[in-house]
Amino acid sequence: MLASLRLKKNEERRIKQGHVWVYSNEVDTQATPLKDFQPGQQVIVEASNGKPLGMGYVNPNTLICARILSRSAKVELNIKFLKKRIQAAQDLREIHFDQPFYRLVFGDSDGLPGLVIDRFGDVFSVQITTAGMEVVKDDIIQVLENLYHPQAIVMKNDTASRTLEGLPLYEEVVLGELPESIVITENNTLFEIPVENGQKTGWFYDHRCSRQRLQKLVKGKRVLDVFSYLGGWGVAAANAGAEAVTCVDASEFALDGVDHNAALNGVAEKMTTIQGNAFDVLNALKMEAEKFDVVIVDPPAFIKRKKDFKQGFEAYRRINELAMRVLEKDGILVSASCSHHLTRDNLLQAVQSASRHIDRNVQLFEQGHQGPDHPIHPAIPETEYIKTLFFKVSASW
Amino acid sequence: MLASLRLKKNEERRIKQGHVWVYSNEVDTQATPLKDFQPGQQVIVEASNGKPLGMGYVNPNTLICARILSRSAKVELNIKFLKKRIQAAQDLREIHFDQPFYRLVFGDSDGLPGLVIDRFGDVFSVQITTAGMEVVKDDIIQVLENLYHPQAIVMKNDTASRTLEGLPLYEEVVLGELPESIVITENNTLFEIPVENGQKTGWFYDHRCSRQRLQKLVKGKRVLDVFSYLGGWGVAAANAGAEAVTCVDASEFALDGVDHNAALNGVAEKMTTIQGNAFDVLNALKMEAEKFDVVIVDPPAFIKRKKDFKQGFEAYRRINELAMRVLEKDGILVSASCSHHLTRDNLLQAVQSASRHIDRNVQLFEQGHQGPDHPIHPAIPETEYIKTLFFKVSASW
Repeated sequence: MLASLRLKKNEERRIKQGHVWVYSNEVDTQATPLKDFQPGQQVIVEASNGKPLGMGYVNPNTLICARILSRSAKVELNIKFLKKRIQAAQDLREIHFDQPFYRLVFGDSDGLPGLVIDRFGDVFSVQITTAGMEVVKDDIIQVLENLYHPQAIVMKNDTASRTLEGLPLYEEVVLGELPESIVITENNTLFEIPVENGQKTGWFYDHRCSRQRLQKLVKGKRVLDVFSYLGGWGVAAANAGAEAVTCVDASEFALDGVDHNAALNGVAEKMTTIQGNAFDVLNALKMEAEKFDVVIVDPPAFIKRKKDFKQGFEAYRRINELAMRVLEKDGILVSASCSHHLTRDNLLQAVQSASRHIDRNVQLFEQGHQGPDHPIHPAIPETEYIKTLFFKVSASW
Repeated sequence: MLASLRLKKNEERRIKQGHVWVYSNEVDTQATPLKDFQPGQQVIVEASNGKPLGMGYVNPNTLICARILSRSAKVELNIKFLKKRIQAAQDLREIHFDQPFYRLVFGDSDGLPGLVIDRFGDVFSVQITTAGMEVVKDDIIQVLENLYHPQAIVMKNDTASRTLEGLPLYEEVVLGELPESIVITENNTLFEIPVENGQKTGWFYDHRCSRQRLQKLVKGKRVLDVFSYLGGWGVAAANAGAEAVTCVDASEFALDGVDHNAALNGVAEKMTTIQGNAFDVLNALKMEAEKFDVVIVDPPAFIKRKKDFKQGFEAYRRINELAMRVLEKDGILVSASCSHHLTRDNLLQAVQSASRHIDRNVQLFEQGHQGPDHPIHPAIPETEYIKTLFFKVSASW
């Protein structure tokens, strides 16, 4: 029998509407003191009247002190539970993808808060961000082993948020051996994934659908990919018939990846890379009067915390203005953001403001979102973060 | 030399940010009395300090008393202007569509406020909604004639908003003759378009891209298309391999169209139609315990004016709840809205609220928007109205 975590009066509303996070100030700590719970302990979350709201796990030391796993108070987080949820997640992916390259589990949205799993064929890259999920780490590995017989499972438990949960940072191959090279297919393009040394889990699957749309727009075009990382946009463009592609990134490691991926797809001769700060590189390209038909701007999150909004917004405005300055007349700007705190409307406003500043006219003709392997939980706005806006940019009307 | 329309102090801000509408309360009517202008008269719109903001046209009798056509004060709305804008609009469409079936001009977003043109191959369906555009009606016809040598041009000037502009309601074939049958291709599916007797311009191109996405989800599935009109979703689903499709609409004319379009595509044997009020039909299907794998709900605008919001929101909530009740376990709900006043977040909330009410879990895995032939003007939120949300609906977790 699980212990209970009782909420204060009227604090069950958000949970009843479908959200799964309990904040520490919502707990009736007289009835159920948080300090009585172990990090990761499973509990029944109940309303102030004692009525169970569902089963979840606790971390007494964090602002989000509990997360609901199920509306039923009769289940437990164990191998059976994990297997069911992971299979449901896989079912959703298989509607969309016929090859085993996708984010298999996306945390709260797949009913598995604190767990992200990226699948690169037979290699699984796992990230655990909560104490509650860390407790069942061995069960997760077990389930993946039973369901997929993986070649390797890597724990990429090196994200800073783990520190807040009181969890150590580490990276570890917990099953099998990492192959020398892991190559995935995204849309029609091959990419080698640096699971060990890459950013986050090694690859950003979240832009896949928007990259596919880009591919329809680039035939015979000169394309600039700013913040290219491994060339997710740029190599895809080259592979879709772009005449020439330039990738810009601050990281030499990333640009080596671009070159490697371009070669993998037989488009090395179309590819140019420029290492440097994106703002500086765009300024330099403008000074040299370089122009492109299509420019993609997909920066890292400029707004990591809400309080960074103003400064971050200005950075989005500025980078998009620079991008428009190196666009040919009637060119296409693809402007992405992965900051949850920058809404779609904010990004639209940043681009519109930039366009007025340099006297351009912009038309938004297409909008992309995180792909179906990053489903959104409608009651949890935090599960949505990607937006990609496609503009035609003309001289002012 | 055009007359000037002067704005009050500080009323130029929105225009400078890129919007193109001037409200009558923003005009300095002491300097430039509105009653001195003819409906449709071209003017220079200027700031309170006399600085020109651009060229536009006036209607002294409407709340939106002027619309900006150009940031330059040196151009006029004439054949040359219309030709340039229509060609720019066509260029944007040709990036995306290789067949001549699209909305060619989408009002403000294409720099042609008050003008909508749908293209059905060699037949053009034109709708003028402002006095300023009505003045150049013959020029518009002339430009279309010169550019496209159309088989027919129909003026569909029967929309109620014309009355506010002091314009008569009429429908008229102004060039050539309407062919007996107009068949378009949308994605891979044929549709016959009732230009004369259909709703609006005869067809809703705006959902094309979302319908294409639907087609990837329906193979072997039982599909229900609620508010089907001519079967834009349902026939497309049947044509993409759905096992069986049921179309629901209140209009016999629409359902005859569904049958005809199904036959056109050789999928008549998969198609069932039910005539009736959508809410009643869904209730009846539920009583009969009918279930579908995929349900599309694409109602007419339940919120036409802002003050209808509360009632309209409840209608969206209710129709989506009914749709979920006839969904198989782990089925797909495609929920659309064309109400500008219902935001994407509102629709998401309506579906989430309905799902909690009947104890379902929903995951938003894909989001659609109006297609690229309905571009959005980033400074004019009113140009965005379509949203289409794709959900996986499961038993409550």
